[in-house]
Amino acid sequence: MRLATLDDGRPDGRLIVVSNDGLCYAPAPVDSLQEALGAWRDVAPLLEAVQDFPDTLDVRRLMAPLPRAWQWLDGSVYPSHGALMDKALGIEPFRPEGPPMYQGVSDTFYAPHADVPMADEALGIDFEGEFGVITDHVPMGTPAAEAGRYIRLVVQINDWSLRKLAGPEMKSGFGWIQAKPPCGMAPFAVTPDELGEAWGNFRPALHLRVDWNGEPFGNAFGEPMAFGFHELVAHAARTRNLVAGTVIGSGTVSNENYREVGSSCIAERRGIEIVDHGQPRTDFMKYGDMVRMEARLSDGRAPFGVLEQKVVKP
Amino acid sequence: MRLATLDDGRPDGRLIVVSNDGLCYAPAPVDSLQEALGAWRDVAPLLEAVQDFPDTLDVRRLMAPLPRAWQWLDGSVYPSHGALMDKALGIEPFRPEGPPMYQGVSDTFYAPHADVPMADEALGIDFEGEFGVITDHVPMGTPAAEAGRYIRLVVQINDWSLRKLAGPEMKSGFGWIQAKPPCGMAPFAVTPDELGEAWGNFRPALHLRVDWNGEPFGNAFGEPMAFGFHELVAHAARTRNLVAGTVIGSGTVSNENYREVGSSCIAERRGIEIVDHGQPRTDFMKYGDMVRMEARLSDGRAPFGVLEQKVVKP
Repeated sequence: MRLATLDDGRPDGRLIVVSNDGLCYAPAPVDSLQEALGAWRDVAPLLEAVQDFPDTLDVRRLMAPLPRAWQWLDGSVYPSHGALMDKALGIEPFRPEGPPMYQGVSDTFYAPHADVPMADEALGIDFEGEFGVITDHVPMGTPAAEAGRYIRLVVQINDWSLRKLAGPEMKSGFGWIQAKPPCGMAPFAVTPDELGEAWGNFRPALHLRVDWNGEPFGNAFGEPMAFGFHELVAHAARTRNLVAGTVIGSGTVSNENYREVGSSCIAERRGIEIVDHGQPRTDFMKYGDMVRMEARLSDGRAPFGVLEQKVVKP
Repeated sequence: MRLATLDDGRPDGRLIVVSNDGLCYAPAPVDSLQEALGAWRDVAPLLEAVQDFPDTLDVRRLMAPLPRAWQWLDGSVYPSHGALMDKALGIEPFRPEGPPMYQGVSDTFYAPHADVPMADEALGIDFEGEFGVITDHVPMGTPAAEAGRYIRLVVQINDWSLRKLAGPEMKSGFGWIQAKPPCGMAPFAVTPDELGEAWGNFRPALHLRVDWNGEPFGNAFGEPMAFGFHELVAHAARTRNLVAGTVIGSGTVSNENYREVGSSCIAERRGIEIVDHGQPRTDFMKYGDMVRMEARLSDGRAPFGVLEQKVVKP
């Protein structure tokens, strides 16, 4: 099942159910995705029962499938990304036993085709292609072995970053505030079964195709997460309950063979350049730049649709 | 003006206007504080117009004045607190030019008289007494000189912490997730004018009386913030818009003469003990322990009411 949210002027928008080919839709029997997640056991069968899609979908009318959330927690579970980011940011952080995870702004997730305002071109504007899950209510202390059952939807995220601010905020130990503006989300939130065999051990086995200004930039594979999403959910819920509609991210998708597959963010490429040449060669994004992200199944289908965002002056 | 929220079974509760002596109330003309904040210009005059308080207030029926928020950002702007915490946690973090600030869980603020479930007694359960503000919508890039005008309400917060998890999470650079369960809030959110001369240069000039299991623990003064709340708001809004209802905290209230006034958290006392004796002597909280916090004006009035919370097993 694919879900999306039409922009109807309200902050949570209007939930719709989208056809398997992503071309048509029907209004959902509940108003918003947050409302559906708050009563998933009752609402999911009603959503699954929608099989007739009378309306043609204009993806430019979509908001993020969850336009705002009570909580957004982002992991960093691709080991090659962590190692290259240390190079790019010039830091040597302590590696915890569990997955690194930060809490980011969740009051806004930008629409898949949004123009994204960035405060200043000089701050090192960067995209980060990643996967995420949206959970049901998760009780505090839920172990990883049980946490997977609370995952309701899988999403594709662009975690916008301002790299010039990232190093100092990281060194403070307080995590990122200014370095992490709101994220974007690809058009469709999908139930795990929609991914078929590409969802195994709570990991998304899809290639994340990233293009920057129309040029191929990366095509990393989502599967090699050091921790699966069930472990990320358990980590997040160790000392707090998670409310229904909590969004949890994988961090930037990255593979050990990055020289072949490329990267899902600019900072990582700069890390590679530092390894190879002693200094970075690729500059960050400028106003007017576009990034496009599309995760593909082995049969070529893009279950989350296409995210295509432009950086603009506020 | 004092506002509070009655627990009526719904997640945002029922907004009420409270009499000047904190004893009586009237239902507000809008349903919830979040709703009021979303249309403050229109709603504030209606709230101010409520002058008849027919109902007797039972503070044990109150939720936090804002039971959940889209964003909670906590600063750390009392210099003596930062220095003692470095001792207590055994770290030497980089001090940024601006105020240190982390993003915490905002989907829940515990009621002023809640029993607060903590995952494990061995994790170093600690309170943190502090002040906070609730903002209107703040546009990205608002400078400090203009940021103060977006402050709508002042609140008193207990930022619950699990100290054994704090050091490793800080060293990771990603900030705190497991070390920071949801906070509590004192009963009343007040407009700045309610504080009279005790609100100057966007700083609360009140003493924060903290008692642990009935014993006086601290009575620090709120005024000596290295950065005022207008600067904290501007810091938070540098690269993001803040939505109406964003909560921003001061961090633990602390004074340079901590030997006279005591502390607003246990970790800070342990930092003092490390300075004095080479090791901490005071243990953290146990299940069943109570903490009481009450900020007092010079005339003895407690504008935020009394927060009194008990730590319990989940």
